[in-house]
Amino acid sequence: MATQTAVPPGPRGERGELAARILDCARGSFAEHGWAGTTVRSVARAADVDPALVYHYYRSKQQLLEAATTPPAGFLASVVEAWQAPSAELGERLVRNLLAAWTNDEYRVVLQAILMTAAHESTTRERLRLSVETSLMGPAAIGLDEQDRRARAGLIASQLIGFAMLRYVWVVEPLASMSAEDAVDHLAPTIQRYASGVADQVA
Amino acid sequence: MATQTAVPPGPRGERGELAARILDCARGSFAEHGWAGTTVRSVARAADVDPALVYHYYRSKQQLLEAATTPPAGFLASVVEAWQAPSAELGERLVRNLLAAWTNDEYRVVLQAILMTAAHESTTRERLRLSVETSLMGPAAIGLDEQDRRARAGLIASQLIGFAMLRYVWVVEPLASMSAEDAVDHLAPTIQRYASGVADQVA
Repeated sequence: MATQTAVPPGPRGERGELAARILDCARGSFAEHGWAGTTVRSVARAADVDPALVYHYYRSKQQLLEAATTPPAGFLASVVEAWQAPSAELGERLVRNLLAAWTNDEYRVVLQAILMTAAHESTTRERLRLSVETSLMGPAAIGLDEQDRRARAGLIASQLIGFAMLRYVWVVEPLASMSAEDAVDHLAPTIQRYASGVADQVA
Repeated sequence: MATQTAVPPGPRGERGELAARILDCARGSFAEHGWAGTTVRSVARAADVDPALVYHYYRSKQQLLEAATTPPAGFLASVVEAWQAPSAELGERLVRNLLAAWTNDEYRVVLQAILMTAAHESTTRERLRLSVETSLMGPAAIGLDEQDRRARAGLIASQLIGFAMLRYVWVVEPLASMSAEDAVDHLAPTIQRYASGVADQVA
């Protein structure tokens, strides 16, 4: 008989810790194996808990996926705050906010899981699409009208997400080891131009 | 007894067609299920051929993955050619080349599979990383020195890949339905600035 090393299957004051451990394992599994390759049982095994405990906390595989790929509330709040910067500082503020989020260990693991899961899981991709269109681009008060505002916000998202993907997820050099100050110097004017429309005069 | 509808397991003049069909199915499976969730048997079933035929053409699951995620030679050649544009036209040429590649059905299916597979499959991610650093950034004749050249090429890749990801893979609006001319008008000055270093004067 195997020695029972698993945590007893039930909340014992350590509810938050167990729920967080299950969520960590779910993030890793959805990111690597996708929706089809992830089961409540495999997540429970990875987290070293009883499958019943996974159902207890998250009710279903669908809700587990949603919990695993929900952007951290603190991150979304920081994006809203960055969008409220004076227009001349918008580029720098949005870039610094991105760099701060990805160097925050707690945020980074979630953001990375979202990007990796969205690549091959259509439900997550749809949620990410909505999340980019509303949370990341939604608070943007830029442009001439709603159509122009959304185009500009989308371009800003494309540069920020592309940079994050290459620097943090794919680890492409020299972007991966570029200093934060150099990243701001390079990227902020791009974001600033998308936000303020200097593009049309330059083009 | 089931009726045998599968193509007979062997080359019959239609070698190219069968090999291409296997590769299409492999791309879809690696993109959706990743390395762990894909088997030679499942690819064979999807392609409606005998597993022996998959081994006959691709020898192993590893070589099947490599074949499925190798960028089209024509696409890589077009990137090299675009990099040779006169420096004042570099931004526009690189953006137009990107748009042309993603509207080429043959290229698009492969590029999309690469981005989706790389998100959650470390071997493919490593190959993509090398591919970006060499094939996509390698031909760039820009910057003050090698370090500067690679940083600028990396920034250009981050904008082009980020835009392709949001427009074609995640289908984020209004980027997804933006006209090619608008995309060029918005993106070309960004690429031009990364290439020629006007950034430092603007910042």
